[in-house]
Amino acid sequence: MNTRPKKRIVILGGGFAGVYTAMHLEKALRRHDDLEIVLINKENYFVFQPMLAEVVSGSIGLLDTVSPIRRMLPRTDLHVREIESIDIEKSIVTTTPGFNPHPSVINYDHLVLAVGNVTDFRGLRGLPEHAIPFKNLSDALYIRNHVIHILEEAATEHKCEGLREQLLTFVVAGGGFSGVEVVAELNDFIREVIKNYPQLNAREVRVVLLHALDRILPELDEKLALYAQKILARRGVEVRLNARLEAATGCEAILSGGERIPTKTLISTVPSSPNPLIDALPLPKERGRLKVDASLLVQGTNNIWAMGDCALVPTPDGGFCPPTAQFAIRQAKTTAHNIVTSIRGGERKLFQFKELGKLGVLGHRSAVAQVFGVNVSGFLAWFLWRTIYLMKLPGWGRRLKVASSWTLDLFLPPELVQLQLTNSRGVSHEHFEPGEEVFHQGDVGDRIYIIARGHAEVVREDAAREVRLAHLGPGEYFGEMALLNQTTRNATVRCAEALDVISIHKREFSVLAANLPSMRESLEKVMSARSKTSEMLMSVELSHFQN
Amino acid sequence: MNTRPKKRIVILGGGFAGVYTAMHLEKALRRHDDLEIVLINKENYFVFQPMLAEVVSGSIGLLDTVSPIRRMLPRTDLHVREIESIDIEKSIVTTTPGFNPHPSVINYDHLVLAVGNVTDFRGLRGLPEHAIPFKNLSDALYIRNHVIHILEEAATEHKCEGLREQLLTFVVAGGGFSGVEVVAELNDFIREVIKNYPQLNAREVRVVLLHALDRILPELDEKLALYAQKILARRGVEVRLNARLEAATGCEAILSGGERIPTKTLISTVPSSPNPLIDALPLPKERGRLKVDASLLVQGTNNIWAMGDCALVPTPDGGFCPPTAQFAIRQAKTTAHNIVTSIRGGERKLFQFKELGKLGVLGHRSAVAQVFGVNVSGFLAWFLWRTIYLMKLPGWGRRLKVASSWTLDLFLPPELVQLQLTNSRGVSHEHFEPGEEVFHQGDVGDRIYIIARGHAEVVREDAAREVRLAHLGPGEYFGEMALLNQTTRNATVRCAEALDVISIHKREFSVLAANLPSMRESLEKVMSARSKTSEMLMSVELSHFQN
Repeated sequence: MNTRPKKRIVILGGGFAGVYTAMHLEKALRRHDDLEIVLINKENYFVFQPMLAEVVSGSIGLLDTVSPIRRMLPRTDLHVREIESIDIEKSIVTTTPGFNPHPSVINYDHLVLAVGNVTDFRGLRGLPEHAIPFKNLSDALYIRNHVIHILEEAATEHKCEGLREQLLTFVVAGGGFSGVEVVAELNDFIREVIKNYPQLNAREVRVVLLHALDRILPELDEKLALYAQKILARRGVEVRLNARLEAATGCEAILSGGERIPTKTLISTVPSSPNPLIDALPLPKERGRLKVDASLLVQGTNNIWAMGDCALVPTPDGGFCPPTAQFAIRQAKTTAHNIVTSIRGGERKLFQFKELGKLGVLGHRSAVAQVFGVNVSGFLAWFLWRTIYLMKLPGWGRRLKVASSWTLDLFLPPELVQLQLTNSRGVSHEHFEPGEEVFHQGDVGDRIYIIARGHAEVVREDAAREVRLAHLGPGEYFGEMALLNQTTRNATVRCAEALDVISIHKREFSVLAANLPSMRESLEKVMSARSKTSEMLMSVELSHFQN
Repeated sequence: MNTRPKKRIVILGGGFAGVYTAMHLEKALRRHDDLEIVLINKENYFVFQPMLAEVVSGSIGLLDTVSPIRRMLPRTDLHVREIESIDIEKSIVTTTPGFNPHPSVINYDHLVLAVGNVTDFRGLRGLPEHAIPFKNLSDALYIRNHVIHILEEAATEHKCEGLREQLLTFVVAGGGFSGVEVVAELNDFIREVIKNYPQLNAREVRVVLLHALDRILPELDEKLALYAQKILARRGVEVRLNARLEAATGCEAILSGGERIPTKTLISTVPSSPNPLIDALPLPKERGRLKVDASLLVQGTNNIWAMGDCALVPTPDGGFCPPTAQFAIRQAKTTAHNIVTSIRGGERKLFQFKELGKLGVLGHRSAVAQVFGVNVSGFLAWFLWRTIYLMKLPGWGRRLKVASSWTLDLFLPPELVQLQLTNSRGVSHEHFEPGEEVFHQGDVGDRIYIIARGHAEVVREDAAREVRLAHLGPGEYFGEMALLNQTTRNATVRCAEALDVISIHKREFSVLAANLPSMRESLEKVMSARSKTSEMLMSVELSHFQN
């Protein structure tokens, strides 16, 4: 039997669905060595999603919520790579190259699609540029460090009125489990650590939760949702119902009614979209999710399986499974069984599972839960939450670490360390709404801007009058004086309409200008033309011929 | 007395010297409220340097070695900013702007310079581009994540011979305390976690320590240094004495004798240089360090104090203090006392301190120490090291966390999670040595290269013959075909001489090309010219007129 070639099962995605499928397949390997399991994931760890929000507040260690996949799956061949393409005709998956400048191509006998979904800001004005998603570990760490950075800045710039309001307002969009958990942890964290900033006052802090419907937590019973709203409000969170986030800039969240909330921190857990990989597949889908039968086989195929958030899994009562970890874990078990039976023979199982309950944490020692149909809230629900999830963490080592972090957290203040790991991108995209200023005359700035879409006015203020210097459109740049070590802006740039720009740090821009002759020439042309305009204008102003 | 304006003491630097000065000044505040303490540091935390190497191996938590400065110094006004300039004439310090586009200017009555030194790779071929420093927390985290990334790649590309050798060789340059500690922790970590990579064999791993002199640890007694060398060798570290690192490329460390060690991981703790801020000051210096008197006052001034690694502090026996934490902490106490006396009156103290001992850890349960003149090594020294440093950590909370991490570390395997926090820079610098290839025909690539210095040959291989397509020099670019989604390189680029390039990811480059008309034009020109050359050449080849 061992002389037959091994069947290769390629699993895409290292979330609950993918990792648990591999885990069950590894169990099948104990009896026969006829399978080869490959798992492709862009990170080498599995994220225990239910605890991700705790990373923001630091009540667990930064790595406590993740587990190395290799340790969980010792007999699986893990590829830490991005997936470039899936070819169903040829039964191959191609991953992006790493240090070896060649893509790797992996054949499969069975393919398991468990890539989840993504938060997709496309089509929402300014959100791709300025909203922070909350989906994986790097998002959680980014949010944590960003918030500490904001508090440090607010403490240093506490005399700058308008800026202080933007800095001390924190907005979370989306009132589902994920949004509620992150807003609760964020609020607890800020209100605790602000005590270390004598220049700042907790009463100035606004933490806002935006939700498009008339109550939060649509996943839960109304009574529990109302309880959660009450708890959040009591802790100082402004819960804004029927409020839909429509657009964003670097300093505002804009609601669909037109209301603008000044903020430098906009986290959005919505909208959830299908993974682009699934989008590109020629397989039957509904609402962007793969259509599978009750055995988790994608309709119309005989070796492609799908589950978790990227699949529409039917339930015996005619509905579909919700996209939660509880379901993904059970689906994984069924999928693994059915793959093994289709290789070794045997009877397929059909997926069925009745949800045990739902749990959501509301920050400091409070939670809401619906367990076996019973509503629980407050401290009891929180205790339940901690106990259940602690036991669900993969591996005793991890459980021990989390338990020890939680114990220390009971009497130690939260960590207040800002990790400056992410270099601010040398080239980035920014969005501005009509009437906004890109920069103001007299500001210090070190970025050069290229207009991608829209128009902007360059004006100079001079003895309370405003003189229009130029009107710029797509392909034109401004702010180039920063290159001459003249870091103080000598004019104001304001948008007449919505404006999208690419901004480049002067460090990167000067490297390009120094080494690309074409760029240097055009830059020199623009600069000499502008200095002439500016000189002319000044002489005109001096001779009082200005209208 | 309280009606007199407060004296402002501005401390630059949040290392041992700066933080402990502020701590002693805060004590002086208990009696009179006549001082204002400002501390400027680019991070909001203090790094406990002696434990930094443990972050690499993960035997303590990622944040265990750092403490939030605000918690340590509740009465100090902390500015988390970079220092832009120091004006001694006007007694002001200017910091870079944050969210508010204006620099902040801070006046001082007393200035404390405690900015330490830096690792400076300038002037060493390829080191600024390819060597990793080991100085602060982000370096330690970067090294840790890089090493895990390397192991993941090696596991995926285990069939690619030459690359595997580069990936599995790890080089550390500099055999002082810092280099020895990092090589020891790195070696322990790799040899432990490699067990989780079934494709890799610990015997293939090379961990190399380069040291320019004939024995490591020049700070210690020869006997201890030899002991350390023996322990490192037994653990599998190749200790290379009289070996000086001269240059580096993306895949090699080059020694001064010309020997080349293939590696993708080159960490260098040398050379140490004065901080550029100190360099720029019109104050008396020797070997780049500020000359101070025994009261820690900079020579020729009456309100500028300096200590720690950026100052040359005289000892009573006519020598100078070594740049260690032990000395910095005691210097800080003297400085704080003398600042207070120069404000309130009283007698100045002169700095004197006899070193208690020296400790260096050699990884897993071994260390070397010289305490009160007695040599200690092995487990005892390691136990001493842990005990002493645990008690020296600032605050009981921190001690508890580290003690708990150490306890868990005794029976749990090290963390194996790769945090992908740093986006690969869109624009980066790369160095190549003569004969090296930037890329090879058939490689997959997504970067465009601009030559900054040197020349390169573009050649095409065709049925075992090589045809020279072009000879490129400064300002010219290559690899631009990547923009056309033609990710497979259609030619090889090789350096005839040392080559420095700027490489830009196609994502950033296409944004620039799409929005800067001048760049687009020149790009189109180059591409059409090259496709013509290429077509011509191909027709020549086809008609067999090739020589």
